[in-house]
Amino acid sequence: MTAVAKVIELTSSSAKSIEDAIESGIARADSTLDNVEGAWVQDIKCIVKNGKVAEWRVNMKVTFLLKD
Amino acid sequence: MTAVAKVIELTSSSAKSIEDAIESGIARADSTLDNVEGAWVQDIKCIVKNGKVAEWRVNMKVTFLLKD
Amino acid sequence: MTAVAKVIELTSSSAKSIEDAIESGIARADSTLDNVEGAWVQDIKCIVKNGKVAEWRVNMKVTFLLKD
Amino acid sequence: MTAVAKVIELTSSSAKSIEDAIESGIARADSTLDNVEGAWVQDIKCIVKNGKVAEWRVNMKVTFLLKD
Amino acid sequence: MTAVAKVIELTSSSAKSIEDAIESGIARADSTLDNVEGAWVQDIKCIVKNGKVAEWRVNMKVTFLLKD
Amino acid sequence: MTAVAKVIELTSSSAKSIEDAIESGIARADSTLDNVEGAWVQDIKCIVKNGKVAEWRVNMKVTFLLKD
Amino acid sequence: MTAVAKVIELTSSSAKSIEDAIESGIARADSTLDNVEGAWVQDIKCIVKNGKVAEWRVNMKVTFLLKD
Amino acid sequence: MTAVAKVIELTSSSAKSIEDAIESGIARADSTLDNVEGAWVQDIKCIVKNGKVAEWRVNMKVTFLLKD
Amino acid sequence: MTAVAKVIELTSSSAKSIEDAIESGIARADSTLDNVEGAWVQDIKCIVKNGKVAEWRVNMKVTFLLKD
Amino acid sequence: MTAVAKVIELTSSSAKSIEDAIESGIARADSTLDNVEGAWVQDIKCIVKNGKVAEWRVNMKVTFLLKD
Amino acid sequence: MTAVAKVIELTSSSAKSIEDAIESGIARADSTLDNVEGAWVQDIKCIVKNGKVAEWRVNMKVTFLLKD
Amino acid sequence: MTAVAKVIELTSSSAKSIEDAIESGIARADSTLDNVEGAWVQDIKCIVKNGKVAEWRVNMKVTFLLKD
Repeated sequence: MTAVAKVIELTSSSAKSIEDAIESGIARADSTLDNVEGAWVQDIKCIVKNGKVAEWRVNMKVTFLLKD
Repeated sequence: MTAVAKVIELTSSSAKSIEDAIESGIARADSTLDNVEGAWVQDIKCIVKNGKVAEWRVNMKVTFLLKD
Repeated sequence: MTAVAKVIELTSSSAKSIEDAIESGIARADSTLDNVEGAWVQDIKCIVKNGKVAEWRVNMKVTFLLKD
Repeated sequence: MTAVAKVIELTSSSAKSIEDAIESGIARADSTLDNVEGAWVQDIKCIVKNGKVAEWRVNMKVTFLLKD
Repeated sequence: MTAVAKVIELTSSSAKSIEDAIESGIARADSTLDNVEGAWVQDIKCIVKNGKVAEWRVNMKVTFLLKD
Repeated sequence: MTAVAKVIELTSSSAKSIEDAIESGIARADSTLDNVEGAWVQDIKCIVKNGKVAEWRVNMKVTFLLKD
Repeated sequence: MTAVAKVIELTSSSAKSIEDAIESGIARADSTLDNVEGAWVQDIKCIVKNGKVAEWRVNMKVTFLLKD
Repeated sequence: MTAVAKVIELTSSSAKSIEDAIESGIARADSTLDNVEGAWVQDIKCIVKNGKVAEWRVNMKVTFLLKD
Repeated sequence: MTAVAKVIELTSSSAKSIEDAIESGIARADSTLDNVEGAWVQDIKCIVKNGKVAEWRVNMKVTFLLKD
Repeated sequence: MTAVAKVIELTSSSAKSIEDAIESGIARADSTLDNVEGAWVQDIKCIVKNGKVAEWRVNMKVTFLLKD
Repeated sequence: MTAVAKVIELTSSSAKSIEDAIESGIARADSTLDNVEGAWVQDIKCIVKNGKVAEWRVNMKVTFLLKD
Repeated sequence: MTAVAKVIELTSSSAKSIEDAIESGIARADSTLDNVEGAWVQDIKCIVKNGKVAEWRVNMKVTFLLKD
C-alpha cells in the first residue's frame, strides 16, 4: 500500500549543455530501472580543455519507485 | 532612506530548459510584485516521464524592493 | 612529483544562458592562468530588469594546476 | 500553463505531538490560502516546563500553488 | 575481519505517523536485504489534501552489513 | 489555542552599523505587520565605495505571530 | 542582569516513539540540571532488529539557564 | 604535553549591542572557567518589543584550555 | 558515448588507521564492482574501548563507472 | 562586455568592534586591489585575554572587479 | 532503562599524526569521564612553522554514557 | 597594527598518506608565500587504480599573514 522509492546517486556528463548532461544520466538510469520518477541536481561542474568547457558534468540523485 | 527588500521563495517549472523555468517564475512574481530585482536558484530538479525529462523545476528566492 | 592545484573563486555573468556565464568566467581565468582544469558552480543567480532576466550570474570555483 | 508554487515559512506548536504541531500549522495555512500542497519540516524543538515537554514546536516550509 | 556496511537512501510514507512512515521503509528494505542495522532520518515532509495531512513522507539512509 | 508564527525574509541596510541595519529592517517590518517577535540574522555583507564600507547589509528572517 | 544559557548535547532513546526518546533525554537532563528551558532535535535515527525498529534515537541540544 | 581544549556552547544577550552580548557571555564563562581562549559566534538573533530591538542574543562556542 | 558513474555510500573500519579503514572499504567495493574510480571521505569516527581507539570508522562515497 | 569579479578570502581583526575588524580587512584589500566592491562576512570570532575580548576577528570573502 | 549519552566537544593536537591527535583527545577525556564510547571528527587543521606541519589539530565530538 | 591574513584554497596529493598529501600542499604554498600559518582540511578523497588507493587527495584552505 505504502509506496517506497529508492534514491541513487549518479554523475553524468555532456559536451552540449547542463540539461543534456542531466538527460544522459536519466537515460542511463532508465535503461536498467523501472519507474524513474525524477532527479535532483546536487552539483554542476565543468571540465576545461584549452580554455574552453569540454564537458558539463552533473551529480544528481535519481528517484525510482520500488515495485512490491 | 534605507532600502528594505523582501525575499520570497517560489518553485516554478518548464518543459524547455532550466533557464525557462526560472524565467517563468520571475514572470509570475513580476505580475503581482513591483521592483523585482533578482533571484537566487536554490535547487534544480526534474520530473521524469517515460525515461525522459518532462519538466525542469527550480526552487528560487526572489528579491523585490519594498516601497516606503 | 606531487601535483598541487590552486582553486580560485570567480563571479561571472551573461545575458544569454547559465552555460554562457560559466564559459565567460572560464575564458577570463584562462586569459591570465595556465592549466585551467575545470570549475565547480557554487551559486546561480539572475538579475531582473523590467520583469525579465537581464543577466545570468554564476559564482564558481576554478581549479588550475600550479607549475613547479 | 507553467505552474508556480509559493513557499512560506511557519512555526507552529502543540502540547500533544510533533505530528499535531505540524497539523496545526497546516490548518492555519489552509484557513487563508488555497491549494496548500504540502510541507517540509525544517526544525523540531520542544519547550520544557518543570522537567517535562510542555510544547512541541516545528518550523516548516509550506507550499501552495499560485492561481493564475 | 573488517566489517563493511552499505548505506542506501529510501523515501517512504504513511497516512498514520512519522514513525509509521519510517517503519514501512525499514520493512521494505528488510524484505530484500539481510542485516539491516538502522536508519537515519534526513527529511520529514507531508502531503496535504483538503487542508489536512494525507501522507507523512520521510527520506532516510538505511544501513545494512555487507556479507563477506 | 496553538500559536502559529510566520517567518519572512528581509534584506536591509544602514551606513552606520550592523545593528542599525537590523533595526531598520525590523522598523520596516513593524510598519506593516503586527506582533513582530524577533529576527535571526542569516548573512552580513557590506558594500564598499572608494575603499571604505559605504553600507552594512543584513539578510534576516523576521518572525511575527499570526492572529487567529 | 543579562541571562546566560548553556547548551549541552545529548543522545537518548526509546522503544516507543520519537517523542518518548526526546522526553527521556529531557528527564535525564532535568535530574541534574536546574532551569532546563527546551531542546532542539538535531538528528533522528533508529536501530533495527529483525527487520523492525527496536529503538528510536535522537540527538538533541538541551538549553538551561545558568544561575548567577 | 599535548594541549586539549574544551568547547562549550552558550547563549547570552544584551540590550546594547552584538559585541556587548558576546562580552557578557565571555564574562559569565570566565567566572567559572580558567583559561578561556576565545569564542566563535554561531548565530545572531534579536528579540523585538514594540517594533524595536529589545535584546541582542548570540549563540557562541567558547573554548578554554583543559589543565592537565 | 557519455560516461555515467554511479556513487554508492559505504562505512568501513580498521583497527590500524584512517587510511586503512578507507582501503578496506575500497577493497570490499572492488570485490563486486568493476571500474572503481575513487572515494570521497564524508565522516571520520572512532570507537573507543577502555580509553583507547579500538576502531577507526569512515563513511565514504565510492564512485565507479557504469558499463554501457 | 561581461564583467568578471574575483572573490578572495581574508581574516582581519580589531580591538574595537566587529565593524572595525571588517573595515580593516577592506582597507588592506583596497591597498593592493582596484575596484573592491564589497564583502561577505563568513565567521565572527573573538580572542579572549584575562576574561575580556582582546580582539574581534572576522573571516570574509572580498569581491573585486577584474579589469579586462 | 533508556540510556542517555552526553556529547562534548574537544580540540586536541599532536606533532605526529591525525590519528595521534585524536587519541590524545580521547585519552584526556577518558581521564575524567567514565564510559567514553567514541568520537566523531569534525575538523582537521594543522599549524605550520617554517614551512612544515608543526602540529596536527582535530576538533571532535566525544560521546560517553551517562550513569543513572 | 591590525594583522590581516589571506586564505587560499589548494588541492594536493600523495601516494603515501593523508598527512603526506597535506604536507606536500603546505610545502608548495611555502615555496612562494611567506608567513604560512596553517591549513584547514576541507575534503579528503582518494583515487583508486586496480582496486587500490593510488593517490590520497586533500582540498585545504591555507592561511598566511599579509605583510604591511
